[in-house]
Amino acid sequence: VSRTVTAETEDVRLEKLRDFMEASGLDVVVTMSPENVAYVAGVTPPSQRIVRSRHAACIVPREGRTTFVAVRLEGPVVRARSRLDEVELYEEFVEDPMDVVARALRDQGLGGSRIGVETAFLPFADHGKLVRALDAGAELVPVDADLARLRMVKGVSEIDVIRRIGTAAEAIHGEVARAFRDGASEQEVATFISERYAEAGGDGLTMLAVGSGERSAILNAPATRRLIEHGDLVRVDIIGTSECYYSDVARSLVAGEPDDEQRRIFRLLYDVHRRLLDAIAPGVVTSDLYRLYHEEMVAAGLPPYHFVGHGLGVSLHEEPFVDAVHSIPLEAGMVLCIEPLTALDGRFGIQIEDEVLVTEDGCELITEAGDDFLRMG
Amino acid sequence: VSRTVTAETEDVRLEKLRDFMEASGLDVVVTMSPENVAYVAGVTPPSQRIVRSRHAACIVPREGRTTFVAVRLEGPVVRARSRLDEVELYEEFVEDPMDVVARALRDQGLGGSRIGVETAFLPFADHGKLVRALDAGAELVPVDADLARLRMVKGVSEIDVIRRIGTAAEAIHGEVARAFRDGASEQEVATFISERYAEAGGDGLTMLAVGSGERSAILNAPATRRLIEHGDLVRVDIIGTSECYYSDVARSLVAGEPDDEQRRIFRLLYDVHRRLLDAIAPGVVTSDLYRLYHEEMVAAGLPPYHFVGHGLGVSLHEEPFVDAVHSIPLEAGMVLCIEPLTALDGRFGIQIEDEVLVTEDGCELITEAGDDFLRMG
Repeated sequence: VSRTVTAETEDVRLEKLRDFMEASGLDVVVTMSPENVAYVAGVTPPSQRIVRSRHAACIVPREGRTTFVAVRLEGPVVRARSRLDEVELYEEFVEDPMDVVARALRDQGLGGSRIGVETAFLPFADHGKLVRALDAGAELVPVDADLARLRMVKGVSEIDVIRRIGTAAEAIHGEVARAFRDGASEQEVATFISERYAEAGGDGLTMLAVGSGERSAILNAPATRRLIEHGDLVRVDIIGTSECYYSDVARSLVAGEPDDEQRRIFRLLYDVHRRLLDAIAPGVVTSDLYRLYHEEMVAAGLPPYHFVGHGLGVSLHEEPFVDAVHSIPLEAGMVLCIEPLTALDGRFGIQIEDEVLVTEDGCELITEAGDDFLRMG
Repeated sequence: VSRTVTAETEDVRLEKLRDFMEASGLDVVVTMSPENVAYVAGVTPPSQRIVRSRHAACIVPREGRTTFVAVRLEGPVVRARSRLDEVELYEEFVEDPMDVVARALRDQGLGGSRIGVETAFLPFADHGKLVRALDAGAELVPVDADLARLRMVKGVSEIDVIRRIGTAAEAIHGEVARAFRDGASEQEVATFISERYAEAGGDGLTMLAVGSGERSAILNAPATRRLIEHGDLVRVDIIGTSECYYSDVARSLVAGEPDDEQRRIFRLLYDVHRRLLDAIAPGVVTSDLYRLYHEEMVAAGLPPYHFVGHGLGVSLHEEPFVDAVHSIPLEAGMVLCIEPLTALDGRFGIQIEDEVLVTEDGCELITEAGDDFLRMG
């Protein structure tokens, strides 16, 4: 584990996408998922995730001008923040977004071309509409896995954004520990985090877990009115975005003192965590890293979880996954979350999660958990 | 506008769904969108919206036991809150959720049956996987529009939940007006709302708009660090969920005094709003209601928006839409948001949005905007 920073040229996202299109014989790629709209254009229309019919699309031809297609009412936000050349707005209910995408493609002579689309996002019905709205020769090619692969290695500006909000999330954990003790409710903690996260430049918390006592064993535990009791473990996972990039940092806090079993499990998990961090370097294959995790957990007498890490970027869980199934060689510039955990249903859960940047000679810890629970109060 | 309450039998959601299946010759319906999972089962796995590959599915045969399919790590939440008979959990990365859905269907002898699915949600790739995993005779039938239609008229327990969180949202607007004045930041207002919303039983704010000054004209304006200035209009829209049902209540506040133009526009919008509320009754067709809105706005010299209302339930915008395109006769038990607005780009925006329950003889206002801006401070 070293502290060097990967050197990368500035914003290379569109360049990487076009290199991929060149290599795979695609004329154009149309991204529509929130994460790939964010990746390509730098902004997602706020209501895109909530009102599913308000499709957004980023049209990136191998050559030529790029177009952002969005519902008219999101025009101001998109115009203010999109990196693409053009913005094409459609009337909700009156125009079908697939027709507008098809028209934009035809306007550039791409109506019958080889078009990369996200078939793991695009609904079946919209896929059909798009096919019918295009010219006869059009071919829709799934590029979901390719986009996931392109996004794995981050550029300098992406790393900057991830680092800024990740370190902010880590600092907020420390503030929570100092500001709260038993008697506080999970919701009070959540509100505090929400406020600090916004102050730190967060867009919002996508999924915040604040689980105290036996709720610390529930993985995606939203805050409730439950009051933290003396002796409770509190698992807090700060998942949110800033400029469309995620933070995902979990800490285990305790109100009072952990008991011997909790102390022992924390220490075992922490040792597993450090061994994983020490093992991270370019060329290491994710399934091998997972195997190391699995062996360490079994040796420690702890139940292994089905994954121990994942890539982080414009989506929360992305390639490279660190599990038994995915075998991806690490590369400098990847950002991983490493998160060993033990959850004993109905009793307690302990998790240590850090964000890590793979560097030329190992990794840099964007966040760095300490070797003990965070003590509250 | 009266104040009677619609009488409905208790929870009729599955019953309505089965009546529809009977009428349309379907053997089973499989819902997978967050809103229709929530509608059928009463809970959505927290990470379903964030990690798209973690599909959830509710399998409702016309006859026989109902099954909730979810990723294993969401088991505790789903088991605790699902209304369905069975919970079937799958291993992330190892099992494809479509295979698990297909297996569950085959286990009930439905592997080759007529299966209702949401083709406007189900991704193209997953649709293909499901078809391949089912028996040869299986037929996937789009039921998106049917489910939207079934959801239009709410039952008593749905109305209770909507009323509780809607009135809470309205009360929070009043609290904001009393607690803040110029000098406060939009984020401070947002944090306050977030805290109060959680205290009121909200699951979380899905999309909160706090737009001050010229930002009041941006429709989906997340809170920023901008400080509210004396004389600013502040548009606040409280969109979130409680027990999976939405609140959507917007108010226009002012820090100081509105100018004559703003006062005039508010008054005109308010009059339009009241005329719409007065016109709501069973049998009224939504496009006629929109036409009334359009005429009133033109007569008032205000630019009409492309819709003025929408249904509210387990999704934010749902049938019946009140616009020029949708012609749906209103029925008792429907819940509508009526939301005339005027947004002058770069200057200011004014919006009045109430939640309304259609009753046997008119409508009941779940929330009721006053005839003037809410004064801050």
